[in-house]
Amino acid sequence: MSTFTVGLLSPGDMGHVVGQVAIASGARVITCLNGRSERTRKLAEIAGIEDVPTYSDLVREASLVICILVPAASESVAARVADALKETNEQIVYTDCNAIAPATTVRIGKIIENAGSVFVDAGIIGGPPRQPGGTRFYCSGPDTSVFEKLNDYGLDARKVGDEIGQASGLKMCYAAQTKGTTALQTELLIAARRMGLYEGLIAEWEMSQQDRLAGMERGLPGMPTKAKRWIGEMEEIAKTFGDLGLTPKIYEGAADMYRLVSETPLADEAPETRDRSRTLAQVIDIFAEQSKSK
Amino acid sequence: MSTFTVGLLSPGDMGHVVGQVAIASGARVITCLNGRSERTRKLAEIAGIEDVPTYSDLVREASLVICILVPAASESVAARVADALKETNEQIVYTDCNAIAPATTVRIGKIIENAGSVFVDAGIIGGPPRQPGGTRFYCSGPDTSVFEKLNDYGLDARKVGDEIGQASGLKMCYAAQTKGTTALQTELLIAARRMGLYEGLIAEWEMSQQDRLAGMERGLPGMPTKAKRWIGEMEEIAKTFGDLGLTPKIYEGAADMYRLVSETPLADEAPETRDRSRTLAQVIDIFAEQSKSK
Repeated sequence: MSTFTVGLLSPGDMGHVVGQVAIASGARVITCLNGRSERTRKLAEIAGIEDVPTYSDLVREASLVICILVPAASESVAARVADALKETNEQIVYTDCNAIAPATTVRIGKIIENAGSVFVDAGIIGGPPRQPGGTRFYCSGPDTSVFEKLNDYGLDARKVGDEIGQASGLKMCYAAQTKGTTALQTELLIAARRMGLYEGLIAEWEMSQQDRLAGMERGLPGMPTKAKRWIGEMEEIAKTFGDLGLTPKIYEGAADMYRLVSETPLADEAPETRDRSRTLAQVIDIFAEQSKSK
Repeated sequence: MSTFTVGLLSPGDMGHVVGQVAIASGARVITCLNGRSERTRKLAEIAGIEDVPTYSDLVREASLVICILVPAASESVAARVADALKETNEQIVYTDCNAIAPATTVRIGKIIENAGSVFVDAGIIGGPPRQPGGTRFYCSGPDTSVFEKLNDYGLDARKVGDEIGQASGLKMCYAAQTKGTTALQTELLIAARRMGLYEGLIAEWEMSQQDRLAGMERGLPGMPTKAKRWIGEMEEIAKTFGDLGLTPKIYEGAADMYRLVSETPLADEAPETRDRSRTLAQVIDIFAEQSKSK
């Protein structure tokens, strides 16, 4: 059996763990670090991911390319891969795994299909797949078979439909629930703090909403390190729902909230070195201070 | 000891139970049914609340008037009571218990204070107080002592601050969490349904978000009967947060969602006679159909 070679763009927080898992199960994983940060370079090295000089080398050697990036970069990376495909006359299966609106995914799919390759839509639910069963790679499209081979390499790939846009749509709905709820809670906690009602609200919740309060105390203090990335994700959700004729406002407002949080010093901390002793009340105090300057 | 006489405007779903509880503990509760619906009239009768012919009679006989109404009616009712106070030269304690923005409460407070009476801000958290301990009547203002006498009459009145607007603010933050979350969930479930992903999303949640899914299955099917009332409440929350310089969009979008739900036939069912066998999937189907016409 020939080696299954996966091209991975790019080996960031999520991507390098995906690569590491596939390598541990016998896949070869390559990337192109041209223009990437020193941090990404180190993560690739830790994971055992090979660096190739150009995108043309990448599409020559890989049969599957998976793109895991911030939403804003999805389209330009697909265009660069399409150029490499045309230049080399290669055919691959290209999968976009980013948190983007279905309409954006459809557009990216066309870029790849026009270059003569197969496009697969995918959405990742869960954190980096360090524990088996912790992360699902939902996929959709007319032909997802090559992407589903990842199931033989330690990952959990699940087909969710035959249409490009459905896997992205599922990811949007899931993130709408988790990150949308967090944005909504952040806003009302800031409002309570600003009105001198923070302690009163927490006392009421301790009686009537214990589970939700516990969830906020657990999840909210770690959110600021991700806030910058989530602005774009909320905007993609607003677009997704707006395209269906539903109100885009809830998620435009969620983007506003992550924008506010991203302006605080907490947003510049690294996930691995942030102060883990900081309480819910302490982060809300910092957000409330920031909001006063509006 | 003279009888504690409470004027109640008006004995609707919430108000008539409040009256009933106070009466059971020895208070006298009066109302003015002039212009009210036949349903409200029946609820007053069931609760043992006495009808007086005019607002002037009401302020003459009551020492505390509490206003429990839809948000939109708060200001005009306060103006009518103020007129009655000026006409009769009476002094009372007037409490607005409605779900309104703090700035609106401050404005209503001025109407009452300009008529020479004491104003108390209040916000009700919980359903009609059928079980002891199930409902809190938060209050704020410079002098809340007369309103707090309700603690001697089977109700749970808690002071939350010295400023008019704080009790309303607490109510806004609480409702922002409960009803805001419900609006957010409703939208993403409709979106999933429209994209052919409803079953996929529910299957994912059954693995990763069981508690939240259970909450939606329990709470969402009963929401449509309240949707019309909640449009105004979401708009008041948007105003409250906007007045603090925070984004009003999340709650403007929540109002949009309740507007959509209010256009379905489910919104016209009565809470007591609605079809309780209807599942989450069934109500989302109906909302999704409605949203297609947008």
